[in-house]
Amino acid sequence: MKKMDLKPMLKPASVAIIGASRDPDKVGHVILQNYLNGGYPGRIYAVNKSATEILGVKSYVSVLDIKDTLDLAVICVPAAFVPDVLDECGRAKVKTAVVVSGGFAEIGAQELQDRLVAIANKYNMPTLGPNCLGVMDPRSRVDTLFLPTYKLSRPSVGGVSFVCQSGAVGSTVLDLISGEGFGLSKFISYGNAAHVDEVDILNYLMDDPETKVIIMYIEGIKRGKEFIEVAKKITKTKPVIVLKAGRTSAGQAAAHSHTAALAGNYESHEAVFRQFGFTIADDLSDLLNYAKTLESEPMPKGGRVAIITNGGGTGVLTADAIGLSGLLQLADLSEKSKTDLKKVMPPLVNLRMPLDIVGDADEKRYGDALDILSKDDGIDMFIVIMLFQTPGADSRSAAKLISFKERMDKPMIVLSIGSEYTRMHRIMMESAGLPVYDSPSAAVRSLTELFKYSNYRNRPTPKT
Amino acid sequence: MKKMDLKPMLKPASVAIIGASRDPDKVGHVILQNYLNGGYPGRIYAVNKSATEILGVKSYVSVLDIKDTLDLAVICVPAAFVPDVLDECGRAKVKTAVVVSGGFAEIGAQELQDRLVAIANKYNMPTLGPNCLGVMDPRSRVDTLFLPTYKLSRPSVGGVSFVCQSGAVGSTVLDLISGEGFGLSKFISYGNAAHVDEVDILNYLMDDPETKVIIMYIEGIKRGKEFIEVAKKITKTKPVIVLKAGRTSAGQAAAHSHTAALAGNYESHEAVFRQFGFTIADDLSDLLNYAKTLESEPMPKGGRVAIITNGGGTGVLTADAIGLSGLLQLADLSEKSKTDLKKVMPPLVNLRMPLDIVGDADEKRYGDALDILSKDDGIDMFIVIMLFQTPGADSRSAAKLISFKERMDKPMIVLSIGSEYTRMHRIMMESAGLPVYDSPSAAVRSLTELFKYSNYRNRPTPKT
Repeated sequence: MKKMDLKPMLKPASVAIIGASRDPDKVGHVILQNYLNGGYPGRIYAVNKSATEILGVKSYVSVLDIKDTLDLAVICVPAAFVPDVLDECGRAKVKTAVVVSGGFAEIGAQELQDRLVAIANKYNMPTLGPNCLGVMDPRSRVDTLFLPTYKLSRPSVGGVSFVCQSGAVGSTVLDLISGEGFGLSKFISYGNAAHVDEVDILNYLMDDPETKVIIMYIEGIKRGKEFIEVAKKITKTKPVIVLKAGRTSAGQAAAHSHTAALAGNYESHEAVFRQFGFTIADDLSDLLNYAKTLESEPMPKGGRVAIITNGGGTGVLTADAIGLSGLLQLADLSEKSKTDLKKVMPPLVNLRMPLDIVGDADEKRYGDALDILSKDDGIDMFIVIMLFQTPGADSRSAAKLISFKERMDKPMIVLSIGSEYTRMHRIMMESAGLPVYDSPSAAVRSLTELFKYSNYRNRPTPKT
Repeated sequence: MKKMDLKPMLKPASVAIIGASRDPDKVGHVILQNYLNGGYPGRIYAVNKSATEILGVKSYVSVLDIKDTLDLAVICVPAAFVPDVLDECGRAKVKTAVVVSGGFAEIGAQELQDRLVAIANKYNMPTLGPNCLGVMDPRSRVDTLFLPTYKLSRPSVGGVSFVCQSGAVGSTVLDLISGEGFGLSKFISYGNAAHVDEVDILNYLMDDPETKVIIMYIEGIKRGKEFIEVAKKITKTKPVIVLKAGRTSAGQAAAHSHTAALAGNYESHEAVFRQFGFTIADDLSDLLNYAKTLESEPMPKGGRVAIITNGGGTGVLTADAIGLSGLLQLADLSEKSKTDLKKVMPPLVNLRMPLDIVGDADEKRYGDALDILSKDDGIDMFIVIMLFQTPGADSRSAAKLISFKERMDKPMIVLSIGSEYTRMHRIMMESAGLPVYDSPSAAVRSLTELFKYSNYRNRPTPKT
């Protein structure tokens, strides 16, 4: 399988924005503005038929006039002009292109799209799109998104790469990631997948050391055989979490009219995904929920989960979620743990799972409980419930969990439900690499997927 | 069935806080402080064996010394003193009591709890708890919660009443409600349900005109037959949304150690709940998600859902969620709608469902689409997807949806996914009575439950 080199697209030393505009309402204006505001350290060129300067950047009539090696051309001219502009890029030896413009196969203009592909192939120039948001990398500060930062906050630097066929889904999930404590490695929105497709992207991310986890939104897969080939390799080293649209006939028809994707039968897709170690997301929130635990947590040795809680009812709901998972089970306390707990816990505390250390638990009681349970061989994973509405839970208790996290060699996640005061502590803990969830089922499902993935990693490679 | 009069507990003209304290770390201090800060308009008394004044409020040695009619006594003295204190309340003709203190049946002290019940019965004094957070009513400003407002924001005034056995679940969900655009009617946390139980509470809320929707978290039901009796009556006029803990054996054991509840077999509970028109929640977030649509939306005439979207992929995911609901279906556009849409929509717009009015849709395009589709008899409900990351969506587009909402006689909800800029608009729309969701499945499941409830309301009353 020939690999496309996407490095100049994601780590460009120089960028030309073709269709840059002085009109603040135009896509070509917002993209240029975002490059300038985002602190992109490379060389920026504007290309526009009629302007000589835009936002303080010198503007050229054609990309052919730029006397520099160009790593990336971002194209946002109307669809009808794209083939000519792309051909000029090829002649100018531009290394990669992102075609933001829509108006191709997704509205039936297949012939126009075929011309685009022919040009990309002729010059051997990896071309993303058309009909896409393009790429973002918070490390290189490439950012081809035409959405202003006040509408779509940009995520911080991290290890999660997000591959997304749909621009709308891409922008909303990116916006959600910006509100989380974990960060982004790469965002790649590939739209109609006319030239660069999911296989090329996965091939690149497989070897990208900055990418620890991949999350994907897919409407259709073009090259099934190659997709399975790369999937099989990649899940041996990195988790891949997939949300596949078109699970129902209604969704499939909608997907076809959206990105001209042939969605195919979902059950067969799902079976293949599972066979090759993909993690299946059922909703957008799953993508984020699973990503943070799969990125930060070690592989568990088994499925026995300890619950430590300062809220009885929330412990009950979490025990229920474990029972409903069908895969995990509630851990039992060893006799030694019980003896040790009895010495330090107040008499109100029942020495059983879930371990309810009751509503006035402070950082010392959390520390004592974790100290004892972290030595209990009957426990494989931890869910620590810390409800910040209670009198004893505050930044100091959160800091205690962070310090335990640093020396804990078993998966440990936190469940904290609430509004502003809770959100503040959630960001605090997540920034320190401790995944925090806001519902019992989200927490338990995330550990379930971690356990499934670890089981997959421990199995011999399946045959195609 | 004899009804307990809970009005003096929820609309008290006078309150005594027994166990009020000068120590800021004590429960009896926080409760008094919250009354003073919350602007409670009634008469407040402190009771404490050793102080003469607390936080500027005159303090009495015993409730018997207060020369006033007392509607409510809030009791937060240690468990062992509760029976004597409660008996004094009875002798002082206090109308109702809330026992916040824990240390009763939930830790095996059944005899102490039995004494409490005997006293409450002797004086015919509705007594809530023990081991509970008590009550809150944003209209009367009664607030017995011992949690400071910086940790647990208080919700605004509204029509949702929340009945909750667990204090921890109660406080987290209340905190979540405070971040939503809809408001609270009553919060009743009843703990061990020793005297006042879920049947008494439902009986009161059934006739409460301020309560439009009831949400419940239950660990166990004591009086099954009476519960069904009241449930059958109440769901004929008001939706009741129930989250039942103890769905698995792990959860049942945990529930027993938490509130001494005998959780019983979940499947049989669920069957009864459904038979009598309850709405079943599977997670805490469902309680809020279902409540806002059931509170504000009219009953749908059928299950055909129109989707209007400015994001293609999000439309596909929502169409999938409808397909997966097993109950709703994607509406078809009538020929007249197609003809009318063709006149006003840009050529890029495919005239099919989901109606993708594409990424640059502004308030005019949303208005045109809603104008036409609101006259289409083939549509029973609307999901309007407005992604605020896109160039055309802003406060003006949100205002357009609000103005449509005001004259729309069919259910209409909004799906908006994102971070800060989106959250701002979500609050804006929800404050105007337009439910907003942050995931396709949450939106679709909420309409599904609305449809189920309307089907129940249209059926003849089931027999017990």
